[in-house]
Amino acid sequence: MLAKTSVDGSLRALRTLRLLVLVSLCVFISVSAASSPAQEEDSAMENIVTEKKAEESHRQDSADLLIFILLLTLTILTIWLFKHRRFRFLHETGLAMIYGLIVGVILRYAVQVPREPRVILPSCVNSSPATLLVNVSGKLYEYTLKGVNSGNEMTDNEMLRKVTFDPEVFFNILLPPIIFHAGYSLKRRHFFQNMGSILAYAFVGTVISCFIIGLLMYGCVTLMKHLGRLGGDFFFTDCLFFGAIVSATDPVTVLAIFHELQVDVDLYALLFGESVLNDAVSVVLSSSIVAYQPQGDNSHTFEAMALLKSLGMFLGVFSGSFSLGVATGIVTALISFLFTKLRDFQLLETALFFLMSWSTFLLAEACGFTGVVAVLFCGITQAHYTFNNLSPESQDRTKQLFELLNFLAENFIFSYMGLTLFTFQNHIFNTMFIVGAFLAVFVGRAANIYPLSLLLNLGRRNKIRSNFQHMMMFAGLRGAMTFALSIRDTATYARQMMFSTNLLVVFFTVWICGGGTTQMLSCQRIRHFSKNVQLRLIYCFSFNRVGVDSDQENSMSFADGSERRSTKQESAWLFRIWYNFDHNYLKPILTHSGPPLTTTLPPCCGPLARFLTSPQAYENECQLKDDDSDLILTDGDISLTYGDITVSTDATGAHTSSGLAVDDLDRELAYGDHELVMRGTRLSALCHSRHAF
Amino acid sequence: MLAKTSVDGSLRALRTLRLLVLVSLCVFISVSAASSPAQEEDSAMENIVTEKKAEESHRQDSADLLIFILLLTLTILTIWLFKHRRFRFLHETGLAMIYGLIVGVILRYAVQVPREPRVILPSCVNSSPATLLVNVSGKLYEYTLKGVNSGNEMTDNEMLRKVTFDPEVFFNILLPPIIFHAGYSLKRRHFFQNMGSILAYAFVGTVISCFIIGLLMYGCVTLMKHLGRLGGDFFFTDCLFFGAIVSATDPVTVLAIFHELQVDVDLYALLFGESVLNDAVSVVLSSSIVAYQPQGDNSHTFEAMALLKSLGMFLGVFSGSFSLGVATGIVTALISFLFTKLRDFQLLETALFFLMSWSTFLLAEACGFTGVVAVLFCGITQAHYTFNNLSPESQDRTKQLFELLNFLAENFIFSYMGLTLFTFQNHIFNTMFIVGAFLAVFVGRAANIYPLSLLLNLGRRNKIRSNFQHMMMFAGLRGAMTFALSIRDTATYARQMMFSTNLLVVFFTVWICGGGTTQMLSCQRIRHFSKNVQLRLIYCFSFNRVGVDSDQENSMSFADGSERRSTKQESAWLFRIWYNFDHNYLKPILTHSGPPLTTTLPPCCGPLARFLTSPQAYENECQLKDDDSDLILTDGDISLTYGDITVSTDATGAHTSSGLAVDDLDRELAYGDHELVMRGTRLSALCHSRHAF
Repeated sequence: MLAKTSVDGSLRALRTLRLLVLVSLCVFISVSAASSPAQEEDSAMENIVTEKKAEESHRQDSADLLIFILLLTLTILTIWLFKHRRFRFLHETGLAMIYGLIVGVILRYAVQVPREPRVILPSCVNSSPATLLVNVSGKLYEYTLKGVNSGNEMTDNEMLRKVTFDPEVFFNILLPPIIFHAGYSLKRRHFFQNMGSILAYAFVGTVISCFIIGLLMYGCVTLMKHLGRLGGDFFFTDCLFFGAIVSATDPVTVLAIFHELQVDVDLYALLFGESVLNDAVSVVLSSSIVAYQPQGDNSHTFEAMALLKSLGMFLGVFSGSFSLGVATGIVTALISFLFTKLRDFQLLETALFFLMSWSTFLLAEACGFTGVVAVLFCGITQAHYTFNNLSPESQDRTKQLFELLNFLAENFIFSYMGLTLFTFQNHIFNTMFIVGAFLAVFVGRAANIYPLSLLLNLGRRNKIRSNFQHMMMFAGLRGAMTFALSIRDTATYARQMMFSTNLLVVFFTVWICGGGTTQMLSCQRIRHFSKNVQLRLIYCFSFNRVGVDSDQENSMSFADGSERRSTKQESAWLFRIWYNFDHNYLKPILTHSGPPLTTTLPPCCGPLARFLTSPQAYENECQLKDDDSDLILTDGDISLTYGDITVSTDATGAHTSSGLAVDDLDRELAYGDHELVMRGTRLSALCHSRHAF
Repeated sequence: MLAKTSVDGSLRALRTLRLLVLVSLCVFISVSAASSPAQEEDSAMENIVTEKKAEESHRQDSADLLIFILLLTLTILTIWLFKHRRFRFLHETGLAMIYGLIVGVILRYAVQVPREPRVILPSCVNSSPATLLVNVSGKLYEYTLKGVNSGNEMTDNEMLRKVTFDPEVFFNILLPPIIFHAGYSLKRRHFFQNMGSILAYAFVGTVISCFIIGLLMYGCVTLMKHLGRLGGDFFFTDCLFFGAIVSATDPVTVLAIFHELQVDVDLYALLFGESVLNDAVSVVLSSSIVAYQPQGDNSHTFEAMALLKSLGMFLGVFSGSFSLGVATGIVTALISFLFTKLRDFQLLETALFFLMSWSTFLLAEACGFTGVVAVLFCGITQAHYTFNNLSPESQDRTKQLFELLNFLAENFIFSYMGLTLFTFQNHIFNTMFIVGAFLAVFVGRAANIYPLSLLLNLGRRNKIRSNFQHMMMFAGLRGAMTFALSIRDTATYARQMMFSTNLLVVFFTVWICGGGTTQMLSCQRIRHFSKNVQLRLIYCFSFNRVGVDSDQENSMSFADGSERRSTKQESAWLFRIWYNFDHNYLKPILTHSGPPLTTTLPPCCGPLARFLTSPQAYENECQLKDDDSDLILTDGDISLTYGDITVSTDATGAHTSSGLAVDDLDRELAYGDHELVMRGTRLSALCHSRHAF
């Protein structure tokens, strides 16, 4: 029997391998297919009519896109293999980059498509209109403006130009779902509990990091200029811009491992919260820096007025995007609150949710704010309010939809990153600048984490321990946001050098820091669940549904064992004020949970309160089912840990320990939030167990 | 208590109305917002740098897209109101068109944005390259070719030009998910049982319809030319082209009502199957007609060689797209079959499924075949094989994903249709042509349905009754496909006239025929389930899960009561050959269901059979769980009918009747398929009830 299984297994492994080879073959075939039509095109260029050319170009585009789709397919199959075999040293994004690199090398060196000769028109016009009509033998051809041509392209390989996407695609199509998903899946309980620290890291920390990096880079650039190693202009604003875009951390790899290993929830919340918010800060910061333009002739001197304008713009754009995102979230919550019967039509509900979230982005962009930032806060608001009004099916659907979009977009960006290292035509790799940048990034991160942690620890009851600080320092990966910001504009020498350097920073941090996360965790002695404990937890979950509903993280914290931590991590005043306001006024107005307004509003507002309170709220009065809505569990959690069951067979002590776990959990629940929601959680625990069946 | 409820209800209705007004206000605000930046742009055009202009244009695009998003939101809210109130006379697509029309009128008459003056370059070049570099005061601006400008634009309203999407968007982005969803949700049991008739209607019928319409239109056009009512060239190939694109039926409205009212399954299968396949036929047919180009100087004479070439192209493109779609479907099935452990990671599974299906489209387009056709057959293959290999979660996820994409794309297209009636700038409405077209469309549909039905009835055991024929005649709505095909090319006079006429045909058929479906059903005495019967069925489902799994349609057919219909609708030889081959060889190779190959292949192929058979197949041997995989149930079915329970309270006789229903169902199952899968269904029924708990 065993022999048969192993033969079976090896046969299956063989097939698997064969399939992987097959798919990669497909990629290469499509790479060469993508290149062949362009060659034909060249020979008989003159007499081909426009329609034919457009058709050809469409076929070309399809083939180019196909390369990426197959690349993603290959990534998925390989990453499945890794997950199946529990390799944790390489995340799917790192893998996507590797495959991108390989295809990039092939496109660069193996495929040579001669460039179609371009027609350069003399300056018959003195402006650059958006649309240009060219009269060619009686027919008017319509041309649209694509941008300023930088002119210094080094290669004649047409193929490389063809696999280059419009940089705005990243910012306007691929980034929004990623950022929205981050906001939508923010574990809100721990996020709000650590809000003060997260805001400090994200705002103060990012600004510190931006200026430290900017200053260091300015030193580096000045030195390079003296040594004659600089081939073009590089101003102080460029240095600051570099600091801003490289300050956006994206520890997706680290977080995935944290998630899988069930690492301490506060560390997770701090890291995730910081990374989500500093993306927003860094986007707005970088655009404010670009907007810094003194009035004089020499546009790179210091001017207080321009600085103030930049500062004003930063505050304006940030708060504008923030309020817009929150507003759309609240409107969606209101719609789903009022149209309660919408729950019978999950398709309509999901579609509405999707459209409203998308419209946030468009609205923000149309108003001149930053769509990505608006989408982030929209996601957080949706998760906090709208999610509670959705039917359970739509809750699943929306989560799964954005999870899928996030996955596809993220891996697409990372594989494009790999590809672009070889296919981008204006790379400027300057060793000195690169070394300087790596150093500056390191120092900038340190100047963000350590001093702030020191300050924060003065106010925190639950200190951020030094091993947590080291871990946060280590987890400063750079990713999609840094890339999207730096590919947006590669017109000048400075920007091109930044882009090339940023690519290297991303590669290094994703592969080295991302790959070393597990080692770093054990080196820093940050406890995480062994499989054994995970197994027990699952038993606990399956015996008592409380764990699943009320907060997976709550039940995890008991693994910290030695010290019983109060859930009030911060001095908590910020959290408490927010929580009370949210719980007493916002939740009842926007969702069907929370206490009825008639009990929370002063008596003078009686009629208004009665008007705004939903009938369900009265029914909820004794139930206070607020807690289950506090947390969006991703389905992945459960299934992932279920996956572990099948392997680790140490189930002997599990049954007895599960009783203990439930006890522990109960105590944790009772002690944890007692000042604020004690009655709530106890009751909601009862509600859940009723709810579960 | 009652009074309170009614007050509550009216309050809620008031709020709902207020919200609808709010959202529509938003649309109008965004319409005007979309128009305002363009005005500013005009004044200081000269000194604005390119980047600013690009940013402006991006904001503009966002605002334009926002109009559509809000339009869709409005449609969703209104259609929810309709569904909630059970208005069946207007489908969401019809509603989307109405809203589109309204916004179109506003854009056309209320918003006046002066046109940005265009720069026309003299003929400094004698070709039209894809990229043009223009030297403006030292900087090189890059322009890309958009197409030939037709030159006869009648209005100076810039706004209208801005809300015009690239026509290729419809064909390459919006249509594929719609068509894939159609293929993926094809109710396969009844589709395969009526395969002969469906193929006849779709292939022979569409070609007949195309030529009849083409000939009639040629007559009409000739008459117009004699009367001097024709303002440009209109050749016979143009007439045929018109015939081809207007032959693609899209009875989405009718099918939705059929679905809701549980109308006869064979009628549903015939109509749905025909509409899905004739889209494919009409796409390939129209492109073949365009490709018809005689060699001589006068390019509109008859030439046998060119006709043969066109015919060859039709066959080549169709079979190429078909095999490509099926091949990708099979590859996906194989991947999901081999990587069984992929089921533990639903996200990867869903992503893989999505990417493989998308790559079908791209691959087909890159090879010069028709992506839409490939995607259709890919969808059917995926549903037949891959679907069985997916984990239940992924089955749900993929269904829901494509349902959502289909919903959004469809409503977007229909609202754009409404909009474009007023915003398209080259409309040519010619009364005579329009009257001729309506007549031709009617005659063409009649020439498709009635003669073919007569012929098919000779061979069918279960005749297509005359009321069914009338219903099929009536249900020949035109929709997304006709629109996407006619907007693709609006360069010539003939094409512009076709486009305008097609829009009217779509409006008329969707509103009049779609709206009159319920009247037509009762007028033709086509039975459908009353709510009462639906209720009983649901009871039957909830008592005995067989109904849900083994085929919802099966259980419906007993409502036809009087005549016990054999499930072998056709003379069945086609179906039987296909079924045996599929069941004995394809299913076991591609999925984990079906009998092991070792029992179905001849003994000489022993080793091969053992290699190809999955271990699960042996376990399945006694279970034959093929049937449940034969049908994809959309979740909507169940919830929709569950929705009815809450309203119709006639539950008195339900319990007793449910026993009857189950009996009836059992007998139906036993009699129905007995020659082919009798043992299978009986056993699978047992399996299901075990499976369900």
